[in-house]
Amino acid sequence: MRDLGAYLVANTASCTPRSTLEVIEGAVAGGIQWIQLRAKDETAREFYELALAAARLTEGKAELLINDRIDVYLAAKAAGAAVTGVHIGQKDLPVRVARQIIGDGILGLSASSRENIEQANLDAEVIDYLGVGAVRATPTKKDHPTPLGLDGFALRTTWTQLPCVAIGAVTAEDAGAIRSGGGAGLAVVRAICQAEDPQAASAQLVAAWEAAK
Amino acid sequence: MRDLGAYLVANTASCTPRSTLEVIEGAVAGGIQWIQLRAKDETAREFYELALAAARLTEGKAELLINDRIDVYLAAKAAGAAVTGVHIGQKDLPVRVARQIIGDGILGLSASSRENIEQANLDAEVIDYLGVGAVRATPTKKDHPTPLGLDGFALRTTWTQLPCVAIGAVTAEDAGAIRSGGGAGLAVVRAICQAEDPQAASAQLVAAWEAAK
Repeated sequence: MRDLGAYLVANTASCTPRSTLEVIEGAVAGGIQWIQLRAKDETAREFYELALAAARLTEGKAELLINDRIDVYLAAKAAGAAVTGVHIGQKDLPVRVARQIIGDGILGLSASSRENIEQANLDAEVIDYLGVGAVRATPTKKDHPTPLGLDGFALRTTWTQLPCVAIGAVTAEDAGAIRSGGGAGLAVVRAICQAEDPQAASAQLVAAWEAAK
Repeated sequence: MRDLGAYLVANTASCTPRSTLEVIEGAVAGGIQWIQLRAKDETAREFYELALAAARLTEGKAELLINDRIDVYLAAKAAGAAVTGVHIGQKDLPVRVARQIIGDGILGLSASSRENIEQANLDAEVIDYLGVGAVRATPTKKDHPTPLGLDGFALRTTWTQLPCVAIGAVTAEDAGAIRSGGGAGLAVVRAICQAEDPQAASAQLVAAWEAAK
């Protein structure tokens, strides 16, 4: 999993007025292979139903990770949906216990401070990749500390052997800097969710990542 | 599980300014045998840590159910804590898929409308009991429809074979009416969480339930 590449965080609130499923459909058509479904304002039932529907769009084409709600991931999986893992943060369940309950699913963790990355290194055997950011300030997540910048991101990739996916107001134009900075992927919310054409924006992001090889 | 008896919903926000653990400790000392831990404003990590601590107080003395967050239940269980089940609502994961992921843990469901109780009857094999309310209007849960009253509660127990626990601003004085109305238990939030002496209030509730036999 050294290279995750272009990665969509399909944050339901950011997709408005389009449906989240429409955005995911465009992203899959545009070649995005990593999609994280994030639903902060929905009930567990709504999140679960959305996960089932999203999995029908991504099955066989992209990894579909569930943000935070490991129970939603487990439920969708139990219902036969092609969900492939979870992405959790520092305020969620500890990664080792998360690994115990998700089994062999993909486990991504947000970690950006020195302390959090060093802890992740101690837990590296149960983690598949790190989400590192925010590279730039973003309205999507308001609880982030000072933006890291592209240099700050590159520095953090030297602190760990885990694949690091850059996130936080990054765009296709950052693909070269992220990749040369040791990044394993480039995750976006608004660059696809709010694009005029999510499919075209996705294809552009995928192409930019490939071109930066 | 026909008789659950006096049941505490330890809602963290309702325990303030006391700690939730202090309230639970008092309830256990007072003889309460069913405790549901409800944490609506806490992060998953905080809820998990609280569940571990609560389980140390209830182990061998009371059932400890986790409200809504099945992932927190599974994580606490994986960590070896004596959590015994979950209580979920209509906006949470569907009960059949919840049962799939919790295994043989206790599964309680909030169901009060005719439609919800009839659906619960169809799913009865995976449900251990129903929470039925609100008997009276309560500030704890603001999304409840018109209060049922004690008669409305009693009527609902005739709609199902599942044990029905009454909830919603009920007190020890209602034990007789709830029990004669077919109730399997009496669940309180504020009557214990905000009591001057949670242990004494718990003992009083337990005694009232027993006296109503």
